[in-house]
This record gives sequence, structure tokens and C-alpha cells, in this order.
Amino acid sequence: MQGKVDEKMMSLDKVFHAQTVLKNIIRETNVVRAYGISPDCELFLKPENLQITGSFKVRGSAYKIAMLSDAEKEKGVIACSAGNHAQGVALAATKNGIRSLICLPDTAPISKVEATKGFGADVCLVEGCYDDAYQRALELKEREGYTFVHPFDDENVIAGQGTIALEILSELDDIDAIVVPVGGGGLISGIAYTAKQIRPSVKIYGVQVAGAPSMYNAVRNGKIESLKSVSTIADGIAVKTPGDNTYALVNEYVDEIALVTDDEVASAILALIEKQKMIAEGAGATAVAAVMADKFDLKGKRVVAIVSGGNIDVTSLSRVIDRGLRNAGRSSSLLIELIDKPGQLKDISRIIADCGGNVTGVHYEKGNTESVNGCFLRIDMETRDYEHVNLITRSLASEGFKIV
Amino acid sequence: MQGKVDEKMMSLDKVFHAQTVLKNIIRETNVVRAYGISPDCELFLKPENLQITGSFKVRGSAYKIAMLSDAEKEKGVIACSAGNHAQGVALAATKNGIRSLICLPDTAPISKVEATKGFGADVCLVEGCYDDAYQRALELKEREGYTFVHPFDDENVIAGQGTIALEILSELDDIDAIVVPVGGGGLISGIAYTAKQIRPSVKIYGVQVAGAPSMYNAVRNGKIESLKSVSTIADGIAVKTPGDNTYALVNEYVDEIALVTDDEVASAILALIEKQKMIAEGAGATAVAAVMADKFDLKGKRVVAIVSGGNIDVTSLSRVIDRGLRNAGRSSSLLIELIDKPGQLKDISRIIADCGGNVTGVHYEKGNTESVNGCFLRIDMETRDYEHVNLITRSLASEGFKIV
Repeated sequence: MQGKVDEKMMSLDKVFHAQTVLKNIIRETNVVRAYGISPDCELFLKPENLQITGSFKVRGSAYKIAMLSDAEKEKGVIACSAGNHAQGVALAATKNGIRSLICLPDTAPISKVEATKGFGADVCLVEGCYDDAYQRALELKEREGYTFVHPFDDENVIAGQGTIALEILSELDDIDAIVVPVGGGGLISGIAYTAKQIRPSVKIYGVQVAGAPSMYNAVRNGKIESLKSVSTIADGIAVKTPGDNTYALVNEYVDEIALVTDDEVASAILALIEKQKMIAEGAGATAVAAVMADKFDLKGKRVVAIVSGGNIDVTSLSRVIDRGLRNAGRSSSLLIELIDKPGQLKDISRIIADCGGNVTGVHYEKGNTESVNGCFLRIDMETRDYEHVNLITRSLASEGFKIV
Repeated sequence: MQGKVDEKMMSLDKVFHAQTVLKNIIRETNVVRAYGISPDCELFLKPENLQITGSFKVRGSAYKIAMLSDAEKEKGVIACSAGNHAQGVALAATKNGIRSLICLPDTAPISKVEATKGFGADVCLVEGCYDDAYQRALELKEREGYTFVHPFDDENVIAGQGTIALEILSELDDIDAIVVPVGGGGLISGIAYTAKQIRPSVKIYGVQVAGAPSMYNAVRNGKIESLKSVSTIADGIAVKTPGDNTYALVNEYVDEIALVTDDEVASAILALIEKQKMIAEGAGATAVAAVMADKFDLKGKRVVAIVSGGNIDVTSLSRVIDRGLRNAGRSSSLLIELIDKPGQLKDISRIIADCGGNVTGVHYEKGNTESVNGCFLRIDMETRDYEHVNLITRSLASEGFKIV
């Protein structure tokens, strides 16, 4: 029945067994105390972005693959993913000495394809989108007898992710809550199941992005429905349909799920860079984003946020940093309408400098100004915060400049 | 005598003592295996960028401060720095329950001032440059009786940094070499002294930047001379004059020093982001840069590179990422001279798309073209590597476009 846990499926023994199996494959990432990110709670991070392959995914894949029969191993495994799951399966298969084939849409970024090959997988590029690649993977599985490694809705995959909870509970006493990113639900199912068996008082909070709230909706509505579309910078958790098993486990063991916006995620990525010197990808930063944006009642609590992955491409990273700086009022742009009169740039520069703003860009732009000879001046600045931006805007206005 | 180690100054006992004293103040950063950065050696990183305050500096300052007499502690400490040393002293003093005063030039970035205050220091902003702030610190020390905490040329500071070698040697067996960033020489002195006492076969390699080669010159020339100026993105090691003690220790215990360029540093920062999900500042990435650029004979060796700090401001980070991408041919710009004829942008777009380049920016620019009606077109692209850029350039040229 949908939403009910199959009690035979999961066991704590399985998670402990996974921990033993994974010992020589994964890194035991060490929990770190994160200062300066959340003043209200005692925040720790579980940095799975520093995991081999740059995400927690390798845990589940590696346990799944290790549990295959010899005959299944002989045939090899197949998976469909353009992201962390692909790299996890590739490395896990290689470490187990078996073949892996990853189906990717041919629109996948070159860097992801290369990374997947780099971990030893064969890559099958499929014309079209993710769904086309998924269909091809299923066809190949049928035809060639490969074992399909599901990214989340599989008991062994879930048990592998559960080892994260074992590590956290052995590293930290007396934690009150664990905050976990949620896509298909594999990570939070493993963590919630494991943590609640060992220490039932620990609260488990899940975080999805507003642009892909599939599990959030399922829990609220009491049933699984597929999202028509997803749109978020947290592409690692942009899942349209939660799994049956993961939905049941989340229903049973997760205390609350909240949504964060892409802007909150960008601010969290920026905070992790500045305060922790760590790169998180969008999905990886959602738990920290939820803590920063006070989505749960964590005041005075000892809290672990899972930073689930760090595989963000550097051009996106630059854009996210820019976005985060803008959100904090630390960089800003003003569009000023100029009349045709000499010395205006000089005056504007003086006013901004007197206010302590740092000009980083100046562009003259034509446009539909009041005067035929007028133009717009766009000024990019580094500023301290919104108040600082307002101070500059007011100072310019008080000397007669028209901010558009 | 310059260049000779004062044997009474250092002892291994002091370093072990420092380790005990630092136990509850610092993080024991865990060595991580770094895959995909250097194919020729087995590379490990000691991530002191993940240290509290974002750099190793807190080790030396905290040991220095802990060893002060009660009377000295009563008076408090003073230091002069706009960077990692300031934050190290501030936190170390706060953890020891004593007062710290940090002199900074009033041109120091707001973020650094705020971070220093955030760790509990009083900040004294001094009009002028670093040297002015340094003079004021010395005056205040004389007048008020503060203890001056030198950033590197101090036996207790050096012993504190030496604890890094203890951690490395207890974590890893059989390492062949440790590669260390060098500014004033405090870090490498502590590591080299300690490592050579415990395991004399370990090679210690130092790395400076070409724009600030003060210790490199001292070792080559057999004497300390001050550089007239320094210029590098690795501002944390832009030191004009090495210390007397550190020079002597480097002379005695360091096997070789090499120089890296700012571009090599930028590439290392980029590699640490992409492969290790870690932020390093310029100085912090120099050891990795030297490994990547084959500055030492490390083929087949087990090597630890110290990532000494991660305090880079995010706007610099964006610029460094851009630089690193350009250096690798992964982003590029072409300037194409256009004649006054319709459809040229269409043709250029087609050629670039056919070659698999991804256009990220297009700018028309006036300029001194051959034809009066001509103009320049600047195209920004994401590309795979230099070969890919060349392919695009050749394809454009073969259809008659003039690349400037």
C-alpha cells in the first residue's frame, strides 16, 4: 500500500552491514562545526561534498553493487543519470571490478560525461532528453541482462545512504536534529530510518526546493503525483516523482519537510564558500539554506546539516556567487538617467566614493530618455549591504540624479 | 650569525607541547587523498583552509599566546596584519581569555576588518599602508606594554606551525615529501624542523610566487635582502623580508624552493574547486600549483601538499576562476573584424555552433577597422581546450573572417 513501510525491507543490520562493505570504498567524511552561518543554533555540517566522486551517491550505489550475485556482477550494471548518481555507480562498479554502462542524454555537459568516463564507466549518449536516456537504459537492461541501479528507490541503495547517520551518531553526542536535502528521497530515507532506530529523539527534517516539491507535495497530499516540470538551480534534487519505498519511509520517519527558494540556496552556497571554504552544489546547499532561513524550529539546538554534494560547474558557480552577493546587497547596479551636460560622471563618481561604494563597472546605454540627447548610465558597485545601497541612492537623488 | 640555526631555540619537545596546548583550540584537519590533480604522484592534501579562521596561522599564534606569562597575558597582545595572522591572533587571544588589538591600514577591505572583530579583537585602523600600521603597532606595544605577536619569526609561533607535521606523520606512513607554501617562512620552518627530526628521509619542498621571491632569493644568495616591491594574487605570502630565524631553519632543513607564477596559482585554485570542492586562497594553493607544474621531482612519490588557507574574497575568486578557465582554453574570446554586410553574425554563430563552441557573450565594438563602415565583434565562448579554440578560429578564417 502506498505510503506504508514494508517492514521486511529495511533493517538496521543492513545499514551496519553496508558500513562494513563500504569501509574501503568511501571516505568517512568528518562532521565539522560551522561557525558564523546560523547564530541561533549549534550547527555542524556533514560534508559529503568532500566524499569521493563529490557526493554521497557512491555509498548507495556501492552497497547495491556489492550485494549483487556473481552472475549479476558478471553481466554488469546500467544506470541513467547526468549527475552524481552516474559517477557513484561508475566508481562503485570499478572498485568492485565490474562493468558499468551509463546512459546520458547527448545534451549532457561535456564535463559530466568526462567525469563519468574518468571513474571507469562506459557511456552511452542517447539523442534527446533524460527520459529518452532512461528508456534506452531500460531497453538495454532487458536486452543485455544488466542490473539497473536505481538512483534512490532501492532498499540497498537506501541502506548505503543510511551509513551517513551511523557516522554522525558515532561522531556527535546529543544531537537534536539532522537536516537533509530531498530529491527522490533515498538519502533522507536512509538517514531517517537509521537515526530513528538508534536514537528516536533525533528530529529529521527534509528540504526540497520550491521549483521541485515532489516529496513535499506527496507528504502533504497523502499520495504520490508526478510534477509536470521542475525548475531550480538545485538540479541534483530536481526529481519529478518520488519513489514508492522512499515515500513510505519519509512518511513514517521524517518529522517535517520544508521548501527553500533558489535565492536562499544561492545565499547558502555563498556562506559555505566564505565561512567554510567549501564548494556545495545547489542540491548540496539546500539543508544549510533551510537552517539559514529558519525553516524549522532549531533555536538553541545541536543540528547537523547534510551537505550532500559539491559537483557544480564553475561557470554556474560564478553566477551563483554573483546572485548571492546581489541578494545580500554586497553588489548592486544602479541605472541613472543622464541629461546632456558635461561632468556628470565626475559628480556621480564623487558621490559614490564619498559614501564608501566601490565602482566595478560603468556602461553608457542609449534608451528612451526624457531628453533626446540623454542617455542611461549603469554603474556596478561593491557595497556593504542594502542599507549602504540605499545611502548611495539617496545621496545621488539629493544631488538631482534620477535613478531609474 | 645569519643563516645558522640557534640550536637552543627549537626542540621537538616544544612542538609536542604545542600540540597538547592546541588540542582544544584548533581543528585537527584530516589529510585527504586528492585524485585527478596530479597523475604522476600519489597526492594528499593537508587542508588547513578548513582550519578554524580559515588558515593554519591560528596554530602559531595560539601557542605563542598560551606561553605568555600571566603578567603579559594581563596586558594583552598586539599584532599588525590585514589577513590570516590577524584572525589567528584574535581567535587565539579570545580563546585564552585575553585582549588583542590588531592594527590594520585603513585601506583594508571591510570584510577582513569585520572578520577580525568577529573573532573578538579590537581593531585600530591606521591611516596609510601596512608599514604605517606596523609602526603604530610598535609604538602602542612600547607605550602600553602589549606583547607583539610576530606573524612568523618567533620560536613559539614556529613550534605551533610544526604541529602540522606531527599530524601528517601520524596520519600517513611512508610519505616521501611535503610541499609547503613560503611567505615569511614560519610554516615551512615548523614543518621542516619537525618532520626532519622524526623522519629525516622526508623531503621538504618550499614554494614561493615569482612576484614575491624573498626566501627563494635569500637561500640562493646566501643572505637576506628585502624586496622593493611584491606583486601577486597570493597576497598571504607577499612578504618582502624573510625572518632571521626562519631563514636559518629553511637553510638547514628545507631541500629545495621553487617559484610558481600567478597563472599556475589560478589553475591550482580552479583544480581544488573542481576536484576537491575546496576553496583555497592564492597563497594556500601555491604548493598544489608547484605539484601540478612539476616543479619538483615527485614522480611516483607519496606527496603531501599543504593547502595553507582559504581566505579569498569572493569577487577575487570569480576573477581567479575566469583566469583559470582562460588558461585552460575552457573559456576564450575572439575579436573578429566585420565588414559592413548583412548576415555576418548569423554566419559566425553557425560556424561556432557547428564546431561545438558555446557562445556566452557578443559585443559590437567600434575601432580602427580597415573599412570606415566596419566594426569589431567580440565573441565570448565556452570551449573544451586550446585545440577546440584553434579549430573554431581556423573554421572562421576558412570562411573569410579576419580574426584580430
